[in-house]
Amino acid sequence: MSSVAPFRRIAVIGLGLLGGSVARAAQAHAIAVTGYDADPEVRARARAIALADAIADSAVEAVSGADLVVLCVPVGAMGTAARAMAPGLAPGVLISDVGSSKAGVAAALAEALPGHRVIPAHPVAGTEQSGPDAGFAALFRNRWCILTPPADADPADLARLAALWEAFGARVEVMDAEHHDLVLAVTSHLPHLIAYCIVGTASDLERVTQSEVIKYSAGGFRDFTRIAASDPTMWRDVFLTNRDAVLDMLGRFNRDLADLETAIRAGDGTELFDHFTRTRAIRRSIIEMGQDDARPDFGRSDHNGKS
Amino acid sequence: MSSVAPFRRIAVIGLGLLGGSVARAAQAHAIAVTGYDADPEVRARARAIALADAIADSAVEAVSGADLVVLCVPVGAMGTAARAMAPGLAPGVLISDVGSSKAGVAAALAEALPGHRVIPAHPVAGTEQSGPDAGFAALFRNRWCILTPPADADPADLARLAALWEAFGARVEVMDAEHHDLVLAVTSHLPHLIAYCIVGTASDLERVTQSEVIKYSAGGFRDFTRIAASDPTMWRDVFLTNRDAVLDMLGRFNRDLADLETAIRAGDGTELFDHFTRTRAIRRSIIEMGQDDARPDFGRSDHNGKS
Repeated sequence: MSSVAPFRRIAVIGLGLLGGSVARAAQAHAIAVTGYDADPEVRARARAIALADAIADSAVEAVSGADLVVLCVPVGAMGTAARAMAPGLAPGVLISDVGSSKAGVAAALAEALPGHRVIPAHPVAGTEQSGPDAGFAALFRNRWCILTPPADADPADLARLAALWEAFGARVEVMDAEHHDLVLAVTSHLPHLIAYCIVGTASDLERVTQSEVIKYSAGGFRDFTRIAASDPTMWRDVFLTNRDAVLDMLGRFNRDLADLETAIRAGDGTELFDHFTRTRAIRRSIIEMGQDDARPDFGRSDHNGKS
Repeated sequence: MSSVAPFRRIAVIGLGLLGGSVARAAQAHAIAVTGYDADPEVRARARAIALADAIADSAVEAVSGADLVVLCVPVGAMGTAARAMAPGLAPGVLISDVGSSKAGVAAALAEALPGHRVIPAHPVAGTEQSGPDAGFAALFRNRWCILTPPADADPADLARLAALWEAFGARVEVMDAEHHDLVLAVTSHLPHLIAYCIVGTASDLERVTQSEVIKYSAGGFRDFTRIAASDPTMWRDVFLTNRDAVLDMLGRFNRDLADLETAIRAGDGTELFDHFTRTRAIRRSIIEMGQDDARPDFGRSDHNGKS
């Protein structure tokens, strides 16, 4: 844990899984944190579980006196959220966010907050759960946080923001927003689209019942439903704001899938075996990088496997 | 645990994850078990870890005196394995297997073992690991085991085989081989094909490096690599033997994915939101059925989340 807090007071706008986790992490580092959410029920719940030092009843009140504002709303709501809080912003305040697409967010914030210091960010972390109760301080530990500063960003601001995420346990990378969007299109957005798709396909068959799909889900389908249980609003906005990169990656995926289909149709076992062997190496690298663990996954509710 | 062993001596042919787990489960129920694998290195390893009461050096020797033989080889190798052991089979022995596709296996075994009692089976359980060390007795606990008896199967044989799987902790279902293959095409085979495909797509890009894909895999891609690390030989054979059902399901998936692509291209947020909301309900049902648990998955090597 860092002993130096790079900010004195953080305002967190949007108190879902990510906003709640930012608030919890800030509290764990003894940084004053004020929260706000546009939904009164979420504010009430956030107060009940003491998600922040204070929960404000307006965005303007929440950002008052903050030297950092972190927008944790769906990426399609960034512009609206920024305009709502703008009158309360202190001079010199740094504005950041946690959105999963970055070029669209950068444009929306630049338009909504002219003259303000803005450095968009994306902690590549999450679970399939949503809402203020889902947040926890350790969410960012050992995960990457990508900062996408505009060309004219103040290096001191960038350093302070990086220090905050490092204090939260994240490893920080800096890249431009367009490259971020391309990388995340393949590592996150396309996987989610495909998972959402197959879960829909499976639930809409005539000769296989939905109860059979659920019953026999342990054969692989189960893992897709976890991803496809993610927040619908967040993901709708990701696909709408990162459309071009997602469509680019989807086009490549479609071509590769057509090749595998051709191999199956032709009974080409060599082609299939070669493809399936190649993909094993990637898995090994991910485990070596500490982004997942090697323990086998066989339905973790049982607590009955080898340890 | 069952106190009555429905078989006195089981022969397990093929000592990978599934064969090893059958052997371990039989041992745990004090049923004598002899193992055999065509690979001498696997036999040596199986002996070293005492995977069975005895490891035979030939299939004929392994099945000698057994009242149940369980074939645990890739589905494409069933016919060959069956012919190799045929001379050693005792009169009245029951033959079964654990293959992931059933119509092709039923045909191969009927051809290789004319006049023998055969009831194919498929325990819907597994991990992404392979080899004799991967096996463990609890693999089948709380999982489904599907039996696909031919029309002329002896009801007493079916009852004994069901009792064995129930003793191993599985819940048994009976269905015909063709329906099995259709159900598994959607719950297991198509998910594996898609996971193998996207992992290949992601490892073959120009503007995104493989190290970036690995680095930022926690955003969703990671979960696909787990499935795509499964045994290449086993999966090659599944796609070759269950070709028609897999191609049927793949066709439906392709049409649904094209619809989502159209919605993204058109900026149709309502369509996306509706689809993503519908898929959440399936996830809830799977958790209620005990086929996965509700704990969030955020990279399990960290041991640092809320508990």
